[in-house]
Amino acid sequence: MTTRVEIWTDINCPFCYLGKARFEQALSGFEHRDDIEVVHRSFELDPALPATESGPVIPHIAAKYGIDVEQAAANERAIGAQAHALGLPYRTSGRDYGNSFDMHRLLHFALDQGRQDALLDALYAANFAEEAPAFADTERLVAVATGAGFDETAVRAVLADPHAYAEAVRQDEREAAQLGATGVPFFVFDGKYAVSGAQPTEVFTQALTTAWNDRPAPVVLAADDTTCGPDGCAV
Amino acid sequence: MTTRVEIWTDINCPFCYLGKARFEQALSGFEHRDDIEVVHRSFELDPALPATESGPVIPHIAAKYGIDVEQAAANERAIGAQAHALGLPYRTSGRDYGNSFDMHRLLHFALDQGRQDALLDALYAANFAEEAPAFADTERLVAVATGAGFDETAVRAVLADPHAYAEAVRQDEREAAQLGATGVPFFVFDGKYAVSGAQPTEVFTQALTTAWNDRPAPVVLAADDTTCGPDGCAV
Repeated sequence: MTTRVEIWTDINCPFCYLGKARFEQALSGFEHRDDIEVVHRSFELDPALPATESGPVIPHIAAKYGIDVEQAAANERAIGAQAHALGLPYRTSGRDYGNSFDMHRLLHFALDQGRQDALLDALYAANFAEEAPAFADTERLVAVATGAGFDETAVRAVLADPHAYAEAVRQDEREAAQLGATGVPFFVFDGKYAVSGAQPTEVFTQALTTAWNDRPAPVVLAADDTTCGPDGCAV
Repeated sequence: MTTRVEIWTDINCPFCYLGKARFEQALSGFEHRDDIEVVHRSFELDPALPATESGPVIPHIAAKYGIDVEQAAANERAIGAQAHALGLPYRTSGRDYGNSFDMHRLLHFALDQGRQDALLDALYAANFAEEAPAFADTERLVAVATGAGFDETAVRAVLADPHAYAEAVRQDEREAAQLGATGVPFFVFDGKYAVSGAQPTEVFTQALTTAWNDRPAPVVLAADDTTCGPDGCAV
């Protein structure tokens, strides 16, 4: 029996970027890591932002939460220091804010391709580590996705059709609400255990261990002889 | 919360072919079908068969189980009649037996591509409905996979490397043994409920309902303020 970890995340969310790295540290040291399946789920921090607008995050945050720009910049530097401590690149002076809906649609496309993790890493790098703004720019998004190995024609087709994977994003967001997740990152293990926040690596190790050890033998609801086994098929 | 169904199967197994169709009938009528995830798992009925050998299944079964050829042919017709009742094509006179390990390796490759179901349907059709033998013929397997939309170069690379996805097949088989599955098809719902055999559609509907209704709220193991929400990120 595998254990399945679902991680609700937003590309805008620096704690999601940190949390992913800490979870992966725990996973890489976990004895049964080859039997752990990870799926990334969608959670937009600010779904009301217009899709065509973007701008520097520091003045945006300062204005949105009524703090001064110096405080917003200091907060960004504090998160950057935590990222650097994990070995993650982080430009503390430069990232943008923006609407992430198209990114989440692409993450569901990537899930269908079996390569969701590669795209999420590329999106995080584009937002937190690279100079060019990551939001409100279709060509930039195409470049990020193709840089992560996705087919350009397929990526453009997803981005050109606003319905493509839109319901999958909304479904993830409804599920987050049902689970009581009001912020991200939010980790759910086999639907049974949750961890909220960019917790220390040891917390993720403990959660993986707890979920792994709590995989009960399934209850057999029905069994008859319409099976084939080493001794053939009953007819 | 989605519900996850894992189905252990072999391409050699006619009850797996029937069981997949009956499960899919139940799924198509299930209210929450969009939140059900299906994964096919490997189970070889006869792993000791040489990979390079194949032949008509009826005399093979007659010899293997010490029944006469007429009885083996009658059994095959009886299974064919059940398939036809489900609308499934089935050539009762012609399928081959053979080693399915390479097929299972390709099913894991297809899982990584997010298109496992399409390949399994194509493999079942090749074995149960089409005239050309499906086993012990790499070119035939390449044709089946490319016919199902997979990239020929990638398929050939998997088939040429005997280690590719081999451990994933073995892992599925160990897990089946741990679960007590001695025959296939074997269906496991969220790791909690099992159905053995090509059961009637209603049994699968009931199992889906039982598993769906038994998705408890997860226990929160850890939560702190290292999250971002609609009101920003705590720093």
